[in-house]
Amino acid sequence: MINGFDPSTAAGLEPGLAELVRRRQALLGPAYKLFYARPVEFVRGSGVYLYDPDGNEYLDAYNNVPSVGHANAHVAEAVSAQLLQLNTHTRYAAAPILDYAERLLATHAPALGNVMFTCTGSEAVDLSLRVARACTGRTGIAVTANAYHGVTSAAAEISPSFGPGVPLGTQVRTVPIGAAFADEVATAIADLERHGIGFAALIVDTIFSSDGIWTDPAGFLRPVADIVHAAGGLLIADEVQAGFGRTGSAMWGYQRHGVVPDLVTMGKPMGNGMPIAGLAARPEVLAPFGERARYFNTFGGNSVCVAAASAVLDVIEAEGLRENALTTGGYLRDAIGELAGKHPAIGDVRGAGLYTGIDIRNVAGQPDGELAVSVVNGLRDRRVLISATGADGATLKIRPPLPFGRGHADRLVEALDAALTDLASRVR
Amino acid sequence: MINGFDPSTAAGLEPGLAELVRRRQALLGPAYKLFYARPVEFVRGSGVYLYDPDGNEYLDAYNNVPSVGHANAHVAEAVSAQLLQLNTHTRYAAAPILDYAERLLATHAPALGNVMFTCTGSEAVDLSLRVARACTGRTGIAVTANAYHGVTSAAAEISPSFGPGVPLGTQVRTVPIGAAFADEVATAIADLERHGIGFAALIVDTIFSSDGIWTDPAGFLRPVADIVHAAGGLLIADEVQAGFGRTGSAMWGYQRHGVVPDLVTMGKPMGNGMPIAGLAARPEVLAPFGERARYFNTFGGNSVCVAAASAVLDVIEAEGLRENALTTGGYLRDAIGELAGKHPAIGDVRGAGLYTGIDIRNVAGQPDGELAVSVVNGLRDRRVLISATGADGATLKIRPPLPFGRGHADRLVEALDAALTDLASRVR
Repeated sequence: MINGFDPSTAAGLEPGLAELVRRRQALLGPAYKLFYARPVEFVRGSGVYLYDPDGNEYLDAYNNVPSVGHANAHVAEAVSAQLLQLNTHTRYAAAPILDYAERLLATHAPALGNVMFTCTGSEAVDLSLRVARACTGRTGIAVTANAYHGVTSAAAEISPSFGPGVPLGTQVRTVPIGAAFADEVATAIADLERHGIGFAALIVDTIFSSDGIWTDPAGFLRPVADIVHAAGGLLIADEVQAGFGRTGSAMWGYQRHGVVPDLVTMGKPMGNGMPIAGLAARPEVLAPFGERARYFNTFGGNSVCVAAASAVLDVIEAEGLRENALTTGGYLRDAIGELAGKHPAIGDVRGAGLYTGIDIRNVAGQPDGELAVSVVNGLRDRRVLISATGADGATLKIRPPLPFGRGHADRLVEALDAALTDLASRVR
Repeated sequence: MINGFDPSTAAGLEPGLAELVRRRQALLGPAYKLFYARPVEFVRGSGVYLYDPDGNEYLDAYNNVPSVGHANAHVAEAVSAQLLQLNTHTRYAAAPILDYAERLLATHAPALGNVMFTCTGSEAVDLSLRVARACTGRTGIAVTANAYHGVTSAAAEISPSFGPGVPLGTQVRTVPIGAAFADEVATAIADLERHGIGFAALIVDTIFSSDGIWTDPAGFLRPVADIVHAAGGLLIADEVQAGFGRTGSAMWGYQRHGVVPDLVTMGKPMGNGMPIAGLAARPEVLAPFGERARYFNTFGGNSVCVAAASAVLDVIEAEGLRENALTTGGYLRDAIGELAGKHPAIGDVRGAGLYTGIDIRNVAGQPDGELAVSVVNGLRDRRVLISATGADGATLKIRPPLPFGRGHADRLVEALDAALTDLASRVR
């Protein structure tokens, strides 16, 4: 895993942390991974900050789940009030879930008339596959070459970013992201059909986060959507990363590209950490599934999680967080661009709103995943949290809570400057 | 769906409810189903009661998710405090999730040394399949004939209770529950192997809820476990229904049977409605999965859901809810047994703790699903909430929040008496 802690180095950690690492391995087993060469323990969060047990403040430039800020008071109040009122499921009639559904769908393309609720983005993706396969009567799925779409059996088998330990499904084809993306999608569809596997859907994270963050030119998904539809398949936009205003210029990543997907999966920032996720759908695409199957997700869209999700929309609107993502994101990328003149390790800088990728390269100009992780750890040592992404792990991933302002961006750039300076001196 | 509302009858509903039904269909689409011939709208909950918009009180004898009671104050306080403190994920080090893991594993068989956290029971089941398949290197799964294990693609294909609209996986075999259960499991395993499909696991809901609730004799799972293990497969105990003290005599359904499963899935009551679920595992069974795959569930085991889950254990212990389940459950079944003398429609009455099944039969003594649903609706009209289960829907399902006391049981029995009397007079 990119930026994963190596437990064999636990002996070098301070005693309290070493003990937590030991307990984690004993209790949670081998599949859980910690971030950073020196993991961090957090006991408190507030806005764009996290705090360790000694009260040290860390600037959070990584977590998109607490999208409206850690420990947001408005969300906490809404949840706390609802917990004392009612928390039940979708087999009783209730207005609040419908009010929220209306409000959420109003932010989407009008063709997306239905929404279903799950607890996690993985469940939303998994449901989108069930719906797409029921609608098309086919099973073939195309994904990007280093896609990540979730942890259920069906989501994991369309997630090549897990690496060879987690096999892709036999009905799955991968497509490299790049200038020839549309042609490559056509090739993948043809290959599926050639193997007798009908093409059901292309699913894409609309900001291509695990593939290294690919945002431009806005609109590059349009010819891709045409190819998918011409082949009788569906376009699934996975908005778990790009959604809820993060890209600044639009509420949803697909809107930046001027396409209307058939299914849209939503997750992480939806409830600011309360487990709620969902699937928006064209009614005619959802109908064949609804005719054959009922859907009941015990906690999905429960009263308390809906209250959280509704409060999140309140805050995004009231605090102008989409606009802030746009302006702060631009400001941040400009500042990093300036830094590039000083640090040859900084390659391409790209992004949209508060989602930024920075390619890190070695002296030969080649992507350098090891150096990128060193930068991530250098920032961690300076109490700034980011991570890295891409197939080679050579792209810094900067994705802070949306209330991230210019002062926070300045602190991040300063720490990045210092970390790169330190690394350059060590490389010499 | 058993006890599902038929939307074509919406015109007969009071205007407010009819409007909610219309909006639900328009917004949430066709896969969502409401309970009851006349659906109920709830706006408030407290303890074992739910309240409609007119303030009418309904006795909840159905919902096991609010296991320690609707709007429980201790759980609400724990969640509210944690929301203002920190809500983050498992890639930072933190003590509370480990404290909870220790406490939870202490209630399990000692062989189950690891626990992983998900948000839903479906995700826990789905993960158990990934783990079982990684451990055995095989794919074949045996389930009971009317099993329900969840809504992800992989969980749905081992859930025959969805009916023919949702196909079973080609590597899935179903086993009728009954006196010959162990022999039938052996037959299913042999059939899998005969088709070249290696046997990976048998998964059973340890109270066999969707199969009609089968509790006795305690211990009937022991020979089944032996057959599964002799075939090199794993036993997965799905404790989403029976777990967290519901059966009264034990914390977990498998403990009633004196077996030690290889994997145990937990869900619904775990966070009293906050989305948290999990998988307990023998470390040696989990190891092959952990070597090959990392597992990160964004909201799974987050700070707030762990606080809820920990508070649930507090309440179960402090209020003696397991003991209450045992005594009230026995009291309830005795009272229903007495009622059987008066109402020939009552057939077999069975259960464990606060999980009770009542077979409903027609004058010929045959299971009568239609009559059972009429009883369910008759109770709903008397403001008592239950439902029905089993392949033919002829078994009343009574599964109240655990603080359900003798007075509540009396009210339930009274309403059941009245509903059956009313139905008998109408049948004549």
